[in-house]
Amino acid sequence: MEKPKAVLFDAYGTLFDVYSVGLLAEQLFPGHGAALATLWRDKQIEYTRLVTTSNHGEHYRPFWDLTRAGLRYACKRLALDLSQDHEERLMNQYRHLSAFPENKEVLAALKAKGVVTGILSNGDPQMLGVAVRSAGLDGLLDHVLSVDSIRKYKTHPAAYALGPKATGFDAKQIAFVSCNGWDALGATWFGFRTLWVNRYQLPFEELGTQPTRTGTSLRDVLAFF
Amino acid sequence: MEKPKAVLFDAYGTLFDVYSVGLLAEQLFPGHGAALATLWRDKQIEYTRLVTTSNHGEHYRPFWDLTRAGLRYACKRLALDLSQDHEERLMNQYRHLSAFPENKEVLAALKAKGVVTGILSNGDPQMLGVAVRSAGLDGLLDHVLSVDSIRKYKTHPAAYALGPKATGFDAKQIAFVSCNGWDALGATWFGFRTLWVNRYQLPFEELGTQPTRTGTSLRDVLAFF
Repeated sequence: MEKPKAVLFDAYGTLFDVYSVGLLAEQLFPGHGAALATLWRDKQIEYTRLVTTSNHGEHYRPFWDLTRAGLRYACKRLALDLSQDHEERLMNQYRHLSAFPENKEVLAALKAKGVVTGILSNGDPQMLGVAVRSAGLDGLLDHVLSVDSIRKYKTHPAAYALGPKATGFDAKQIAFVSCNGWDALGATWFGFRTLWVNRYQLPFEELGTQPTRTGTSLRDVLAFF
Repeated sequence: MEKPKAVLFDAYGTLFDVYSVGLLAEQLFPGHGAALATLWRDKQIEYTRLVTTSNHGEHYRPFWDLTRAGLRYACKRLALDLSQDHEERLMNQYRHLSAFPENKEVLAALKAKGVVTGILSNGDPQMLGVAVRSAGLDGLLDHVLSVDSIRKYKTHPAAYALGPKATGFDAKQIAFVSCNGWDALGATWFGFRTLWVNRYQLPFEELGTQPTRTGTSLRDVLAFF
């Protein structure tokens, strides 16, 4: 099979560690950091789906706003008193998530092979800009694509369609990499060749479709070449 | 404001107790019953969203199938060995969920007021038929509406649109009752008057919209009259 012409990466959970907020959460709410980080992430993703499904665009809000809404819900649910100061500190931490250590090396290896690289993310452009610069990835990415331009979150096909549109390649010529099982599933349904990076030893979604490849690190994307 | 002409109820979680499977789950997997019941439910709902968002109908599967998929995922995730026998017993239990005790009394009170009653559910027609008969609700419901006819799950507007279509009333003339916060939210966005029955003392979704009413039992629907 022809090698991919482009590789697009999911951002949150894939290049940037969404659970790295757990450390600050644990400082602010001792004994609840991990639970808060998990529920916050779950609600953030749930909210992307609710606004995408329900609205025809009407209830769309940028990822930053849904991230804040998820934090507020998670704290109420866990009966944690979220002061304005705590909220701002946690949101600021979300803006500066840790990058996974192999990011740069893998992007540099792809660039060395002449492969077009990019991000295709639920994040809004401002969040993505800060995260990419903080991680020093600027020069290694040809495209930073945000669903904000179409106001529909992944796994909506219109979100994945940003990839072919921006690169000029067909879906089948693009490899899509995500650590989120649901995202790898949606991308596979869309027609991308996919790598699911299973960082947390989870089962894959039980919906009858498998990703093209499964790995444990972003390095595994090099197996496409 | 004009009184509602019809009341439509969500089924799973609202009329029928989806966590009542936890008892059998605990017998089969001691120490893991509650965790399995919770994760099973979460995945089932997540799968309704993934197939609705991603597919234009292509990846739709009936609620029964998604319920089974959710069970399989949840067991793998919790490292529980799901034998075929255990799977069939748990699925059979799901077919015969406990009904909440106030169902009949509330439906009978609505009928006595001349209100049109119905179910508007993600469940497929066969599941709903068994559940309604098991709970003895047959004679108290004018409509049993399943999203299966349109192959899109709630909170897709096309799912809620089944209500006005079947009853002949406008959305604003219909009260919609759900114990699921996301469902009460989607129904409110759609234009129904809504009652969120908060059985588990949860926070409501943080997306800037409130249900018309909040209560703690289905009996609270009578406050619309």
